[in-house]
Amino acid sequence: MASEPRDAPFSYEGLDRVIHEKARLGVLTSLISQPKGLAFGDLKQLCGLTDGNLSRHLQVLQEAGLVELEKRFVRNKPLTTCRITAEGRRRFIDYLSILEQVVRDASKAAKSNRALDPSGKLQLI
Amino acid sequence: MASEPRDAPFSYEGLDRVIHEKARLGVLTSLISQPKGLAFGDLKQLCGLTDGNLSRHLQVLQEAGLVELEKRFVRNKPLTTCRITAEGRRRFIDYLSILEQVVRDASKAAKSNRALDPSGKLQLI
Repeated sequence: MASEPRDAPFSYEGLDRVIHEKARLGVLTSLISQPKGLAFGDLKQLCGLTDGNLSRHLQVLQEAGLVELEKRFVRNKPLTTCRITAEGRRRFIDYLSILEQVVRDASKAAKSNRALDPSGKLQLI
Repeated sequence: MASEPRDAPFSYEGLDRVIHEKARLGVLTSLISQPKGLAFGDLKQLCGLTDGNLSRHLQVLQEAGLVELEKRFVRNKPLTTCRITAEGRRRFIDYLSILEQVVRDASKAAKSNRALDPSGKLQLI
């Protein structure tokens, strides 16, 4: 990766901390296939989060420009729709290419020492 | 994944927070191929970390039982050797199998909406 010094191959500078947090990773994975967005309640269920947790993570993502929220009333009930932005899509895809590299590096490293890796769980890559 | 409710496919319960932090991900990736361990200075360089940062992350990993540190003197200079433990190896490999699933889910989701994914960066899986 061009942005990293050659002597620090495992610094993973490109792993954006806003995206790397595991709840936000689930939120962005849920949203990236839904260009019309997802209702707050559906997103909450997909990610196994509480109202408070999802609100907090959506605020971080919104402040970083990765998602946008639309609030309106339907039959007098408030409905929040969450969407990934074009910028969010681009940055999430960049992040995923680094994450793929992490999995590849680590799996290669684990397999290079096969005698101590008896689990057989890694099928990669 | 059996530990997750079926209706929360993106909760990623198995993404252990001790391991998921990006500097610690680099440390464990560096150590897993080195059963004899790595000197503190070599590890610092591989991961692009400062002395203070590496010490802090090693302490977290040591308290979680994932790495062990051996301090001794060589020619009157202190030398710290860092090793991944058997438990650390097992948990890191478990973590990687979840991370692989994350990359696969997210890439599939991004590709399911190909018209909005012009980067072509994802080659997966």
